[in-house]
Amino acid sequence: MTGDNTYSSTECKRSRCPVACVLDVLGDKWTLLVVRDIFFGKHTFKELQDSVERIPSNILADRLKRLQEQELIRRELYQERPKRYAYYLTEKGKDLGPVMKSLVEWSNKYFPDSVRMSEIEAMLKP
Amino acid sequence: MTGDNTYSSTECKRSRCPVACVLDVLGDKWTLLVVRDIFFGKHTFKELQDSVERIPSNILADRLKRLQEQELIRRELYQERPKRYAYYLTEKGKDLGPVMKSLVEWSNKYFPDSVRMSEIEAMLKP
Repeated sequence: MTGDNTYSSTECKRSRCPVACVLDVLGDKWTLLVVRDIFFGKHTFKELQDSVERIPSNILADRLKRLQEQELIRRELYQERPKRYAYYLTEKGKDLGPVMKSLVEWSNKYFPDSVRMSEIEAMLKP
Repeated sequence: MTGDNTYSSTECKRSRCPVACVLDVLGDKWTLLVVRDIFFGKHTFKELQDSVERIPSNILADRLKRLQEQELIRRELYQERPKRYAYYLTEKGKDLGPVMKSLVEWSNKYFPDSVRMSEIEAMLKP
């Protein structure tokens, strides 16, 4: 946790509609790709940065911070000098599994070139 | 269809990852709210604009254009002078049902204040 929260991670913002609440957290082009990468075994900043979509490092740093604030991921220090962290999904983050699955199924139906769920991990390997 | 497409609506852009493909279409804070509203029976620009999150009209116009380009919605002229359109989900748009459902379930678990699926329609009524 960053300690800089200005709002609760369990508080609805724009409205009490559950779709709006979740979009306040996940409604952008990058956040779910970071979740995907951690889910498939990438844990360090460098590993996440090297992923196939080439996320800009400032966006990656911002999304990791937000994901921690929202308690979707936690970090662990794995190197002291310089300080380096590894990122892991919390239960809340892992619970996005069914969301990811439904997105993949829709995508596989309407984007014929998209890879199947079983091929995503191989696609992400450097 | 607008006739202004510069890319195919079934083509992956950033990568062949199905999560990335779907985020290229739905990865923002507003698009799924427009889909939600049309799903729950709002069809005119005015009805969509009056929804609880108060979408800015320029963003609404942009999202309706994109949703048509992506073939998630279609429009029908319902008034000639001045021209007014009503928007409806296509099969591709309706197929987002399971995605919305999984988002609502996650949201209901982690945002205690969010309304249940059965209450969304009532919440959207003016």
